[in-house]
Amino acid sequence: MIFKFLPDDFNFFDLFDKQVDRAVEAAKTLKDIANTHGPIDEAIFKKIQILEHQGDEASHGVMEQLNKTFITPFDREDIHDLTKAVDDIIDTIDSLVDRIKIYKINGGDKQLIQFTALIEESVWAVAAAVRGLRSMKNARSVLESCVEVNRLENVGDALRDKVLGELFETAKDPIALIKWKEIYEDAETILDICEDVAHVVESILVKQA
Amino acid sequence: MIFKFLPDDFNFFDLFDKQVDRAVEAAKTLKDIANTHGPIDEAIFKKIQILEHQGDEASHGVMEQLNKTFITPFDREDIHDLTKAVDDIIDTIDSLVDRIKIYKINGGDKQLIQFTALIEESVWAVAAAVRGLRSMKNARSVLESCVEVNRLENVGDALRDKVLGELFETAKDPIALIKWKEIYEDAETILDICEDVAHVVESILVKQA
Amino acid sequence: MIFKFLPDDFNFFDLFDKQVDRAVEAAKTLKDIANTHGPIDEAIFKKIQILEHQGDEASHGVMEQLNKTFITPFDREDIHDLTKAVDDIIDTIDSLVDRIKIYKINGGDKQLIQFTALIEESVWAVAAAVRGLRSMKNARSVLESCVEVNRLENVGDALRDKVLGELFETAKDPIALIKWKEIYEDAETILDICEDVAHVVESILVKQA
Repeated sequence: MIFKFLPDDFNFFDLFDKQVDRAVEAAKTLKDIANTHGPIDEAIFKKIQILEHQGDEASHGVMEQLNKTFITPFDREDIHDLTKAVDDIIDTIDSLVDRIKIYKINGGDKQLIQFTALIEESVWAVAAAVRGLRSMKNARSVLESCVEVNRLENVGDALRDKVLGELFETAKDPIALIKWKEIYEDAETILDICEDVAHVVESILVKQA
Repeated sequence: MIFKFLPDDFNFFDLFDKQVDRAVEAAKTLKDIANTHGPIDEAIFKKIQILEHQGDEASHGVMEQLNKTFITPFDREDIHDLTKAVDDIIDTIDSLVDRIKIYKINGGDKQLIQFTALIEESVWAVAAAVRGLRSMKNARSVLESCVEVNRLENVGDALRDKVLGELFETAKDPIALIKWKEIYEDAETILDICEDVAHVVESILVKQA
Repeated sequence: MIFKFLPDDFNFFDLFDKQVDRAVEAAKTLKDIANTHGPIDEAIFKKIQILEHQGDEASHGVMEQLNKTFITPFDREDIHDLTKAVDDIIDTIDSLVDRIKIYKINGGDKQLIQFTALIEESVWAVAAAVRGLRSMKNARSVLESCVEVNRLENVGDALRDKVLGELFETAKDPIALIKWKEIYEDAETILDICEDVAHVVESILVKQA
């Protein structure tokens, strides 16, 4: 109802949708990287950089709009937190990809493939939750998506513990260990950030209930 | 006085007390782990996990209550920050214990024992500060507890610098160095987080003064 | 205009100026450390510690004043964020210097010298931006300073990627690699923190525009 106060050509939800679309795209690209046979193509690194850059601009756009808009669909602070948290997903994916590049890691590592599958699932669930915020009719399915994001974070925690335990038990080359420890930890961090988004979404729902 | 507006069966301070009780319990358990002779028992890892889970729920409970409550004993944002910061203590203790488990660290390391003694002291001081918030009559002793938390953080900084310096000077096994570096740094982080709680408490006091 | 409501002997901008002066001093000292021939003098470590301590006190002073002041030159939260972000610059410089000390790193490393030159440039730009906030007449030059801080952060990112890539490609001693990896990453973090200050400044400008 309150949307009649907003200019017709502007809508925070459209901006959020674009942001989560980009996060999904980044997560898919990350999975492609992990599943590559052998060295990663330079073009795929560029793609992530472009997504990261677009993500920054989108988040900047939300903030600017926020400062100009009197009536917002929910708490200004929640809009700020939501756009920042979604942007953090893309940023942490970009950081991981950057490490893969710096360390000249090849695709095909089974554990990293597992992580990137979890990450893609989680970012899809985040996207479903954020898209659902348009209407309180979706409250139930939005909450279910958030629960799924939390579940995947727990799965990721357990995977990291298992993978790091094996890494330290079997490692002979300390420099390789340093690389892979960081790669796996960065992968798990992305799932933490997805959980942060879910928490922001949950807190928005609670206030509207 | 303002508490007459709150339902009789509900009180933010009771929730905070439960949270700090759990943080103290986690700090004690951490000290027990460090002082164990030889391998750590699986049961003690489970105990920390349960505390961490209960901590999450308690913090979630405070947030939910916050969204439903019109009159709060102090700034809504401070309640949010306080419950989050106390929960962070338990989370960082849980992270350290997780590393001890993953790295198959045995109890008995003198430096870690020193750290966990500092941590227990600091969490006790945090608990005293948070419990004292019920009444401004306690302002002086609350501030003294905060000062103590700050002091212990400085002691922890110096200990970390000394311990890391020795570690790098004497280390021959890089993989062992990686493990212990992280263990000591995580231990020091817990003292940083206790200081964060003290800062929140101090800022609450200043506003009420 | 609104400053007539503030006590004559008090001004938030004076406090911010002192804070950025100290950040500039810390950045210069860091550059001196990197450019030292051979072992670093103990006195220069003390100097950074004193700056860090003074920075903490200055930031504390802003917070206290904030709690006592009814009318502020801009949003209370922005004042809080600005003072905290500037203080974070000094803190992260202090952390890096602390690592240099713990790891008994000598001056003269070419890569570190490059980083500290970037850091000094960035902190100068931050200082110009913060000082310019006194008057909206400076809006244009303030924004230019922010753009410069962002540019330097990108330069720092590229430098870190290059330096880490070389480090991992050529490293033979894993323990030396662990030290230098952390030194370079900490150096790049300082540029990130400068960018955080620039973001706070930009958001203050947008609201006043």
